[in-house]
Amino acid sequence: MRLFTARIVTATEADVPDILQLIRDLGEYEKLSHEVVATEDSLRATLFGDRPAADVLLAYAGAESEVCVGFALFFPNYSTFLAKSGIHLEDIYVKPEWRGKGIGKSLLVRVAQIARDRGCGRLEWEVLDWNQPSIGFYKSLGAVPMDEWTKYRVTGDVLNRLASTA
Amino acid sequence: MRLFTARIVTATEADVPDILQLIRDLGEYEKLSHEVVATEDSLRATLFGDRPAADVLLAYAGAESEVCVGFALFFPNYSTFLAKSGIHLEDIYVKPEWRGKGIGKSLLVRVAQIARDRGCGRLEWEVLDWNQPSIGFYKSLGAVPMDEWTKYRVTGDVLNRLASTA
Repeated sequence: MRLFTARIVTATEADVPDILQLIRDLGEYEKLSHEVVATEDSLRATLFGDRPAADVLLAYAGAESEVCVGFALFFPNYSTFLAKSGIHLEDIYVKPEWRGKGIGKSLLVRVAQIARDRGCGRLEWEVLDWNQPSIGFYKSLGAVPMDEWTKYRVTGDVLNRLASTA
Repeated sequence: MRLFTARIVTATEADVPDILQLIRDLGEYEKLSHEVVATEDSLRATLFGDRPAADVLLAYAGAESEVCVGFALFFPNYSTFLAKSGIHLEDIYVKPEWRGKGIGKSLLVRVAQIARDRGCGRLEWEVLDWNQPSIGFYKSLGAVPMDEWTKYRVTGDVLNRLASTA
């Protein structure tokens, strides 16, 4: 695949409206819109305050690279076996009408460069099992599925109940 | 299950030898010993240096709470849908001869308390699919398996190659 010349930039606070729109688009694509409660204020506070919880890259395309068409959001993780930090890529998304141009790959390559430059041992991300186009793309890059692992989650009332256990 | 009165403490640099031993024990239990390359030096640098990559809790048991019998290691994650930080519990482990006494639950409860106190939206961790005793335990607490997601990983040469893509 020839890489489309998307411009990849580090997001700043001024990009919050674009980031929120992309998150909502992603929620729709993943059929999880009902879970999206992020607002411009909560994104601003958590991503661009004193202690940013994650890094955000934006992809711009178009004749003059003027259209914001995708994003990647990632944060550090840690492997005890390696005693080394890695990168967890939480979201990577390109608007449907801009797919098939290598923009997602450009985002992923940039994240891989950041991982390499930071001396990270691993770059990891999660994919919905029905998302075959993405799975094929990731496997073509040499990514390995961690099939034997399942993530468990506690949230809301269950988390509070667990925290209140004597 | 009655909770055994394990003493749960935040690990310090002096605990590095105990932490390394527990990580090695965990590697053996998960049949992944060949992946464990952590050393005391690399743990000290990454967990107790200027920018600790994770928090570590240790569990002590015995007549005088003098035996280090388990650990939990966790770091922040981030949900774009919630625009909120959470906690990823990377490892939770109790030595085989100390299981069935509620020590693992004590560790998990403490992590849940930290998640609640930090205002986290989620507490998440991963489990090997063959680890039925743990899976039953987690489900009994109300944890929900994220069955429809699979993690992908790039590491080593594949990561470097991806980073070097034009």
